[in-house]
Amino acid sequence: MRFCQSFMTALHRFIGPDVDVPAGDMGVGTREISYLFGQYRRLRGAWENGVLTGKDFASGGSLVRPQATGYGAVYYLENVLKHEGESIEGKTIACAGFGNVTWGICQKAADLGAKVVTLSGPDGYIYDPDGVTTKKKIDYIVEMRASGRNQVKDYADKFGVAFYPGEKPWGVKVDVCMPSAMENDVHLEHARQIVGNGVKYYIEVANMPTTNEALSYLMSQPGVIVAPSKAVNAGGVATSALEMAQNSERLVWTEEEVDQRLRQIMNNIYTMSVEAAEKYGLGYNLVAGANIAGFQRVADAMMAQGIF
Amino acid sequence: MRFCQSFMTALHRFIGPDVDVPAGDMGVGTREISYLFGQYRRLRGAWENGVLTGKDFASGGSLVRPQATGYGAVYYLENVLKHEGESIEGKTIACAGFGNVTWGICQKAADLGAKVVTLSGPDGYIYDPDGVTTKKKIDYIVEMRASGRNQVKDYADKFGVAFYPGEKPWGVKVDVCMPSAMENDVHLEHARQIVGNGVKYYIEVANMPTTNEALSYLMSQPGVIVAPSKAVNAGGVATSALEMAQNSERLVWTEEEVDQRLRQIMNNIYTMSVEAAEKYGLGYNLVAGANIAGFQRVADAMMAQGIF
Amino acid sequence: MRFCQSFMTALHRFIGPDVDVPAGDMGVGTREISYLFGQYRRLRGAWENGVLTGKDFASGGSLVRPQATGYGAVYYLENVLKHEGESIEGKTIACAGFGNVTWGICQKAADLGAKVVTLSGPDGYIYDPDGVTTKKKIDYIVEMRASGRNQVKDYADKFGVAFYPGEKPWGVKVDVCMPSAMENDVHLEHARQIVGNGVKYYIEVANMPTTNEALSYLMSQPGVIVAPSKAVNAGGVATSALEMAQNSERLVWTEEEVDQRLRQIMNNIYTMSVEAAEKYGLGYNLVAGANIAGFQRVADAMMAQGIF
Amino acid sequence: MRFCQSFMTALHRFIGPDVDVPAGDMGVGTREISYLFGQYRRLRGAWENGVLTGKDFASGGSLVRPQATGYGAVYYLENVLKHEGESIEGKTIACAGFGNVTWGICQKAADLGAKVVTLSGPDGYIYDPDGVTTKKKIDYIVEMRASGRNQVKDYADKFGVAFYPGEKPWGVKVDVCMPSAMENDVHLEHARQIVGNGVKYYIEVANMPTTNEALSYLMSQPGVIVAPSKAVNAGGVATSALEMAQNSERLVWTEEEVDQRLRQIMNNIYTMSVEAAEKYGLGYNLVAGANIAGFQRVADAMMAQGIF
Amino acid sequence: MRFCQSFMTALHRFIGPDVDVPAGDMGVGTREISYLFGQYRRLRGAWENGVLTGKDFASGGSLVRPQATGYGAVYYLENVLKHEGESIEGKTIACAGFGNVTWGICQKAADLGAKVVTLSGPDGYIYDPDGVTTKKKIDYIVEMRASGRNQVKDYADKFGVAFYPGEKPWGVKVDVCMPSAMENDVHLEHARQIVGNGVKYYIEVANMPTTNEALSYLMSQPGVIVAPSKAVNAGGVATSALEMAQNSERLVWTEEEVDQRLRQIMNNIYTMSVEAAEKYGLGYNLVAGANIAGFQRVADAMMAQGIF
Amino acid sequence: MRFCQSFMTALHRFIGPDVDVPAGDMGVGTREISYLFGQYRRLRGAWENGVLTGKDFASGGSLVRPQATGYGAVYYLENVLKHEGESIEGKTIACAGFGNVTWGICQKAADLGAKVVTLSGPDGYIYDPDGVTTKKKIDYIVEMRASGRNQVKDYADKFGVAFYPGEKPWGVKVDVCMPSAMENDVHLEHARQIVGNGVKYYIEVANMPTTNEALSYLMSQPGVIVAPSKAVNAGGVATSALEMAQNSERLVWTEEEVDQRLRQIMNNIYTMSVEAAEKYGLGYNLVAGANIAGFQRVADAMMAQGIF
Repeated sequence: MRFCQSFMTALHRFIGPDVDVPAGDMGVGTREISYLFGQYRRLRGAWENGVLTGKDFASGGSLVRPQATGYGAVYYLENVLKHEGESIEGKTIACAGFGNVTWGICQKAADLGAKVVTLSGPDGYIYDPDGVTTKKKIDYIVEMRASGRNQVKDYADKFGVAFYPGEKPWGVKVDVCMPSAMENDVHLEHARQIVGNGVKYYIEVANMPTTNEALSYLMSQPGVIVAPSKAVNAGGVATSALEMAQNSERLVWTEEEVDQRLRQIMNNIYTMSVEAAEKYGLGYNLVAGANIAGFQRVADAMMAQGIF
Repeated sequence: MRFCQSFMTALHRFIGPDVDVPAGDMGVGTREISYLFGQYRRLRGAWENGVLTGKDFASGGSLVRPQATGYGAVYYLENVLKHEGESIEGKTIACAGFGNVTWGICQKAADLGAKVVTLSGPDGYIYDPDGVTTKKKIDYIVEMRASGRNQVKDYADKFGVAFYPGEKPWGVKVDVCMPSAMENDVHLEHARQIVGNGVKYYIEVANMPTTNEALSYLMSQPGVIVAPSKAVNAGGVATSALEMAQNSERLVWTEEEVDQRLRQIMNNIYTMSVEAAEKYGLGYNLVAGANIAGFQRVADAMMAQGIF
Repeated sequence: MRFCQSFMTALHRFIGPDVDVPAGDMGVGTREISYLFGQYRRLRGAWENGVLTGKDFASGGSLVRPQATGYGAVYYLENVLKHEGESIEGKTIACAGFGNVTWGICQKAADLGAKVVTLSGPDGYIYDPDGVTTKKKIDYIVEMRASGRNQVKDYADKFGVAFYPGEKPWGVKVDVCMPSAMENDVHLEHARQIVGNGVKYYIEVANMPTTNEALSYLMSQPGVIVAPSKAVNAGGVATSALEMAQNSERLVWTEEEVDQRLRQIMNNIYTMSVEAAEKYGLGYNLVAGANIAGFQRVADAMMAQGIF
Repeated sequence: MRFCQSFMTALHRFIGPDVDVPAGDMGVGTREISYLFGQYRRLRGAWENGVLTGKDFASGGSLVRPQATGYGAVYYLENVLKHEGESIEGKTIACAGFGNVTWGICQKAADLGAKVVTLSGPDGYIYDPDGVTTKKKIDYIVEMRASGRNQVKDYADKFGVAFYPGEKPWGVKVDVCMPSAMENDVHLEHARQIVGNGVKYYIEVANMPTTNEALSYLMSQPGVIVAPSKAVNAGGVATSALEMAQNSERLVWTEEEVDQRLRQIMNNIYTMSVEAAEKYGLGYNLVAGANIAGFQRVADAMMAQGIF
Repeated sequence: MRFCQSFMTALHRFIGPDVDVPAGDMGVGTREISYLFGQYRRLRGAWENGVLTGKDFASGGSLVRPQATGYGAVYYLENVLKHEGESIEGKTIACAGFGNVTWGICQKAADLGAKVVTLSGPDGYIYDPDGVTTKKKIDYIVEMRASGRNQVKDYADKFGVAFYPGEKPWGVKVDVCMPSAMENDVHLEHARQIVGNGVKYYIEVANMPTTNEALSYLMSQPGVIVAPSKAVNAGGVATSALEMAQNSERLVWTEEEVDQRLRQIMNNIYTMSVEAAEKYGLGYNLVAGANIAGFQRVADAMMAQGIF
Repeated sequence: MRFCQSFMTALHRFIGPDVDVPAGDMGVGTREISYLFGQYRRLRGAWENGVLTGKDFASGGSLVRPQATGYGAVYYLENVLKHEGESIEGKTIACAGFGNVTWGICQKAADLGAKVVTLSGPDGYIYDPDGVTTKKKIDYIVEMRASGRNQVKDYADKFGVAFYPGEKPWGVKVDVCMPSAMENDVHLEHARQIVGNGVKYYIEVANMPTTNEALSYLMSQPGVIVAPSKAVNAGGVATSALEMAQNSERLVWTEEEVDQRLRQIMNNIYTMSVEAAEKYGLGYNLVAGANIAGFQRVADAMMAQGIF
């Protein structure tokens, strides 16, 4: 708390709801954001709560914000499957980690009839062939994380499933791989396992979870569809924008409304990526499409607003 | 007008839509608030109309704001009745005063099939067994107040009902008592009358309308349900928040939209109070529940935002 | 661009989303507004995009804003026709110019089953008896304007319809005349032609498109209904207000939502004008009604907010 | 007072000690400036007293400010006389008016051994061959002005000197003419009288006191030295700058210090004018010199600070 | 330090060099003021050091500020003695306390040839017939205070003079009494001792050091001159103003310059008091004079700046 | 100019007279600073000219600012010589470069009876045994620099002295070496020459003009006194502070006043350095003294103002 307060004392003159809006990253959750906002409020003497996103509910945090990255990733996956003429229902998914993002994936996948069958931690991974689909299991993820023990083995102990110490989940045969934990999680050897298992959908979720080597390898496989994290995980920051909108309106949206807008945004991101790649003759290339669409948007805005 | 302008000249540096938002109380209505806002606008040179609530419509005042406290009180009552397995339809209500609040109660009660049978003034009270339910009667309340004569006898003269000079309406046998005028209106003697009449619902509306003695007596009666004004009359300030939301959005909501949101808010307040009392083992105690729920909310926010 | 930037450097201290919000007029379109906004943003270091309206989409411009004046004019016309017991379906309309406003009229008229049969330019007018109703024709208007050639003859060449060099379209026999180009476009001689052709609906769209003489003449004809531009063309500035609302909410509305709100606003404007004229005993006089309703609104607000 | 307060309420956002600093002109004296400052202070909630000059002493007004224009004019005259190898001692001076400026001239002339022998008013002029040199006489000027009677005849009555009703003082034979009252005071006929009387020094003090015709005539006379008011009366605004300096320092200077700095400034103005005229080959031409030096200064600053 | 920082976090929005300038009082010295200023600077991100007075030298504190109240009191005394045809040289003075104020009196009295012969503390008083005049003795006062032992007996032990435990110094026979410690220090019994000892000069220094009874008694004695603390101790706050002036100028004055300006200010205060009492027919009454002069100044400024 | 304007558009929100005050360094002179100030003024709409130092005179630049570093260096040298019981009169000085700093050294050395005998440029150095002491020679330095030719040979051509192409002036036998041009100008080989020539005074002027090796060597020589540039060249930034003081006061100081205050400041810097080294037992060590005194000052201020 003291650190957050000192940090904001130095930072507050340079941010604002219309100026610059920081968001938390790894290790900065609702608790820290709320401390930061408390100090900002004190210093400004004003309730400008759009200045930070990911706040606690009483400070104007949005419902669904914690799960938003995970939900968004599943919505993105749904689009990819639809493109291939498949349904998400019944699909098995390998995930990594057991933080907010993975929690959101488990929940939304369960809602849509799919199941996440692996979780991982610094200590190894678990394999739950029935899927992390029940409320009890999904709630237990939150509990595990809050415990501070930082080990996924607890899940295996609790629910009587297999735990593989020191290993990563990428050798499990699933329909979809969603590396959702850390940078450089999937190495070339894992990529080879994934391809060997005939996994068709490689959906990055964490920021840059694949080493360069592994990514090149995966993208060169004709039977594999690679989706880039910069598009797949946009649901988090998109919901930050929805939080800012609620703060600006001085209103609180229901969970349904946030979720529905999030789904709409993910569909748009997917569609714009597909169209951008096609427009530039690159076929169904989700990585190139995301890069092009993103660049195009920034470039157009810069041209429209005039040179500096 | 001059007083409002001078007052705002001194005050304007300390308020703002995100800083502090004054609202009118007794004797400060739309007219005064609009004068205050006019001066604020002049001094700031900006249209920051969220700075004050209860404004005239052209300055951004919300529809339903004048009636909101009364409407909200009836919505609260509806919840209490539902809890007891009863319906508001057909209920008779004793009210005090004939200001905005009472006007709102009459209107909303009529809308929902109940009827207010007493009004009061400094000169006594009237008893209208048919209820203040017609448009003509309800509009006449506004006219009476605007006349500046400050006497409720006019109503009796106009509609040919009984007028009881110098008396209070609490001896009338009704289903529900809603003291909706001033502080310390209901004394122990009135409370005894109320209980004697077998009134089951004592719904405070004005700020602290019951003397401490009377309140203790009423709360100790097993057959009487007491609802505290801090929860019951929250519809007014809640609609101020809705006015601020409209000002922030630069939009004007329809009467229906404001009314529906107000109803939702009153239902939430009722539910949170009931749940808070239950959670702390106090049963169906609306007074304790309102205190606990309010305290909890403030305490949680303070903890979340860090110590000062 | 340089001019816009210099202008904004001098202007920026005197405007703001809550202070004063400039909009473009003839010759100032999306391009210029976006340059102005780019410079404002640079100077403030803040994303206060409600400060200007008519921006490009990426800077927060509203959908339907370019067509809004035209759409609004047709909605107004629809109200007038309904008052006379007629339907807009099947009506023929004479328009002038081929800019944004006329483009919007063509589109919305086509949507509602009417057809615009004339367009004009500095070089003359065209007469298209089938109406400017197809997507191809309507899109070509945008193309013509963007070409910078500034001649309406291109339309005649493209679609094989008659072109009348050096003439104005007011001699064409139609159901409705909508002068939608410039000031003082319709002179007494044209007014006589219009009346001679038995045109019943004279709906001004451009700012003051009728000379005083011609206007007096038209208003004195018992069989002619004259609608004043100050009400008819309000859809443009109304949609600027909707753009500001979206900017305040940090949301983007769909085309349908903007269009529907625009229609609602135009209906209100029409209704308030009609009621104001009636209230002051002037019958169905749209010109007087617009003047009275506008004056009344400003005067009421001034009284409410107190003298300066 | 009410007018000053309203005016400042509208003006205050556009001025400031570093922004724009209004000063009074005819009819706006210490009283009005102090009312304006009082309102500014109230609105800002801050003691930014450099925002206005000519304030009362308690609000930070400078000593010598009321007399500064007159003192400065005499210092300028002193320079001119020195250039001609003469001394101010013993010189007779014709002045017009009996306001602040003339009062200052009388005082400073007396201090330096010269004497003002005429004063004028709307009712005529007085001729006091002994000069307005004693404290009693000089104080009486202030009294006359404060009386509100607005007639100079009072002086003649009080001190037993000649009063010439309806006439101007320019026919009196003196060493120096200093028109110090109003615009267009000296016409061609007066100029001819002045020349006829052999007056060598024509020192404008009021803003543009000489008609164009009269000024051309005077400047064409080889024996007459004309000094332009834009330079001669700069002591007033220069002392406003000294008032701002004192306000910035939060200090109060003694009368001596202000007077000495004022003298220094007037000497500089004179010298810069003389040098500018010489540099551009115009000889000893005080009018041209003032124009050139002023223009040069502004032009240089504009070039140095870059184009806009 | 933490307290100062928290306090300033709450206070900083309401103060400023041109807004409100807090100064320390008992128990708030240079250390606390500098902590307060450090936090203010941090929060504002600006070097607005005129916002607080009594700062450390590096933060812009003025030389002589710590001793200013004491120095000023002696300058005031000097004026009183001069009025009575006496000189300060050789006078003996009884002081109370041994804080900043008394320290300043000792120093300045010694500089001018007088001597302070008593100091007091919560434990009693000391009597030093040679006076607290040497650098060694005067420096020891600072040391005593910094020790935190809070006893004046240390001085007696150090310099071998008499210590009177539990007593006050007002029974000592001196020329001048200067109660310079706390409120209500001198009671009626002490006043009687003072008069009995033939003390002619009773110069209050601390804020209200005399009980009402004692003060009435002293003022009623024909042979006693009473000077009120509101005038005598003004040197402290006057030097705060000089500190603000230095901060505004961004300059540091020498000790001599501050001291000389302080002396000038004290002379003015004395003179204005004397003149005010005389003007209102109260003779040489320093108490009445200070009240009148102070009131007059505020009243005049209020009138000049207009009613609120 | 365009670059300066763009740079200031980005920078202006982060600076201010009380916030951060940029000054020019190599290649940024009065011209650039004035362009920067012009843009700042435009953007702020306020005359806050303390925001930048080194401005043109009309924008509030201080007299003596251009020469200040050079003057200050000579004043520092004077102190060193006095410490050694010598006088500056008659001393010969080797300088490098021919920019503002060297120009200032030449002038002030000449004023005090010393003479600079070498100048250097990228093309070599000149040796003028009579010294750069006459107005003609000193003015020619300014001319050389303004020519943009960037060669010191011009001086040799003009005044008929020796030019040594491609060489540095450190082998010339002089009393004092003052490297006043660039970083790392004096290498070990030059240091050896300097020592070999028996030069006793090595006074750094440019920022870090001596390589580490050379500096260690020089400091280890018992007969050489080394003065560090961080103290010697402080006159420039000190005069920037004096410029800010003049801007705050809204006054212009004479050349004499600036020069005298500059001298005082340099004397203080010298004295504080000497005392700091002595206090910490390092003897007459100007390098250590400057480091200690600087560190002490910052550390004391940080302690006084409280931890962050």
